[in-house]
Amino acid sequence: MTQSTHPFDEALALQPLGEAAQGRWSGVASPAYWNMVGPYGGITAATALQGLMQHPHLLGEPVACTFNYPAALNEAPFELSLRPVRTTRTTQHWTLEMIQPDAQGERGVVLTGTVLTGKRRDTWGQIDHAMPVVPAPESVSQEPRIAGVEWINRYEFRTLEGAVPPAWNGQGEHSRSRGWMRDRPPRVMDFPSLLAMADFFYPRVWLRRGLRLPAGTVTMTVYFHADADELRTIGDDYLLGQAQAQVFHKGFFDQTAQLWSRSGQLLATSQQVMYFKD
Amino acid sequence: MTQSTHPFDEALALQPLGEAAQGRWSGVASPAYWNMVGPYGGITAATALQGLMQHPHLLGEPVACTFNYPAALNEAPFELSLRPVRTTRTTQHWTLEMIQPDAQGERGVVLTGTVLTGKRRDTWGQIDHAMPVVPAPESVSQEPRIAGVEWINRYEFRTLEGAVPPAWNGQGEHSRSRGWMRDRPPRVMDFPSLLAMADFFYPRVWLRRGLRLPAGTVTMTVYFHADADELRTIGDDYLLGQAQAQVFHKGFFDQTAQLWSRSGQLLATSQQVMYFKD
Repeated sequence: MTQSTHPFDEALALQPLGEAAQGRWSGVASPAYWNMVGPYGGITAATALQGLMQHPHLLGEPVACTFNYPAALNEAPFELSLRPVRTTRTTQHWTLEMIQPDAQGERGVVLTGTVLTGKRRDTWGQIDHAMPVVPAPESVSQEPRIAGVEWINRYEFRTLEGAVPPAWNGQGEHSRSRGWMRDRPPRVMDFPSLLAMADFFYPRVWLRRGLRLPAGTVTMTVYFHADADELRTIGDDYLLGQAQAQVFHKGFFDQTAQLWSRSGQLLATSQQVMYFKD
Repeated sequence: MTQSTHPFDEALALQPLGEAAQGRWSGVASPAYWNMVGPYGGITAATALQGLMQHPHLLGEPVACTFNYPAALNEAPFELSLRPVRTTRTTQHWTLEMIQPDAQGERGVVLTGTVLTGKRRDTWGQIDHAMPVVPAPESVSQEPRIAGVEWINRYEFRTLEGAVPPAWNGQGEHSRSRGWMRDRPPRVMDFPSLLAMADFFYPRVWLRRGLRLPAGTVTMTVYFHADADELRTIGDDYLLGQAQAQVFHKGFFDQTAQLWSRSGQLLATSQQVMYFKD
């Protein structure tokens, strides 16, 4: 299998609408990454970032991005538009939007976002949130799949802590999951795949409450702490991922996440808000 | 002093440009919250949120917001525009932008942002990031001001840990600050003031490296975990604030933050990216 036929790359395929510099693209959500309702949010974000990285006016590399999910995407073609709002010598600020017709044919916004790109420079560096000491991925077994959700089959997850509860008995003690993860089949790391992985973790409320309640991401922010060369060097090796909630309050909760390389580089940090119903 | 003359409320004053439903406002950055270059980022974000909260189509209350800072604001009037992108039964997604002429009279974007508002409902709740056990604010002394930065005089900060280093000797051991904080003079808590306080913490690189390096916020995300009634109940009491970096990498670093009420409610969680030069 060559990289160009990897399901992740197929999912990110975009067709330009007009000149590339106009930042308008057309695409279709991939059934390979389908979630319960609409595609996996991580793949939608990665697709938007992919469009940005193909923009001829791009300065530097992705540093930070926020995506908001006003509505689930459907199977119809969507339109992605990207705008470089302001460019300085070292940074560039972008806004983006995805629009799609609903079942009645009415066009609506299904994704909004902002992205900061910038030129990284060699400076002093320090990791203050160190990777926990855990067994190597080769010695950890893979977590069984959740039946009926297609996108989960696109990832391998070797759980160290906080697996999806085997029974929904209303018992939960904490909200933290940890495990080794990678694309399935393996794929060389880049910014879109790192972004998609930051959204990997299932709703913390399921773990904390021991109940499979309706829940979904409404907004997600991801910060990248690696450059393209560092990501390439990781190749298709596992990342250690960790997610944890800080607070559940009146229908919403947060999830923080960290993704480290096997060598301990903290590649990405993230937070998101999910709604939940009980 | 009545609440209407509090410097925070004066700083947030906006004049409508046209009908309120158009979501266009004019304002001027307050010298009372001036930072080294331009106004304090927290007050700019709070001003944008204030505009949103005056919008006649607002659904619910703020849940999450992201602000990006492409350029420092100057003393000229700015224009704020807010757009409700999509409204569901329980949530509403907004995009916003602030535009201002530069010294040469050329208009440019100085703030972009997205905000999620929503209706909170009584549900099960849980705080997983508990407030640390610390002395009451009355028994902690106030941290001395940094000379020459006006906005810091608008806050009281009683430092428990991680004060601004008294000497810049290149020695640092951690990146965490903790302390009790409130408006100065005291002011009853609301969403804009909570948002502004989430940006209170000085650059973590100063603490971690023990060097006062050039640094500034480029993007900030704040999640609110309280409703308007809960904030009102806090009155003008102190909040416990905590900030910590996870990673410093090639010219950028992150800051996570938590703000608790004295009774231990986790009111807001935040993360931001700052650039730094060394």
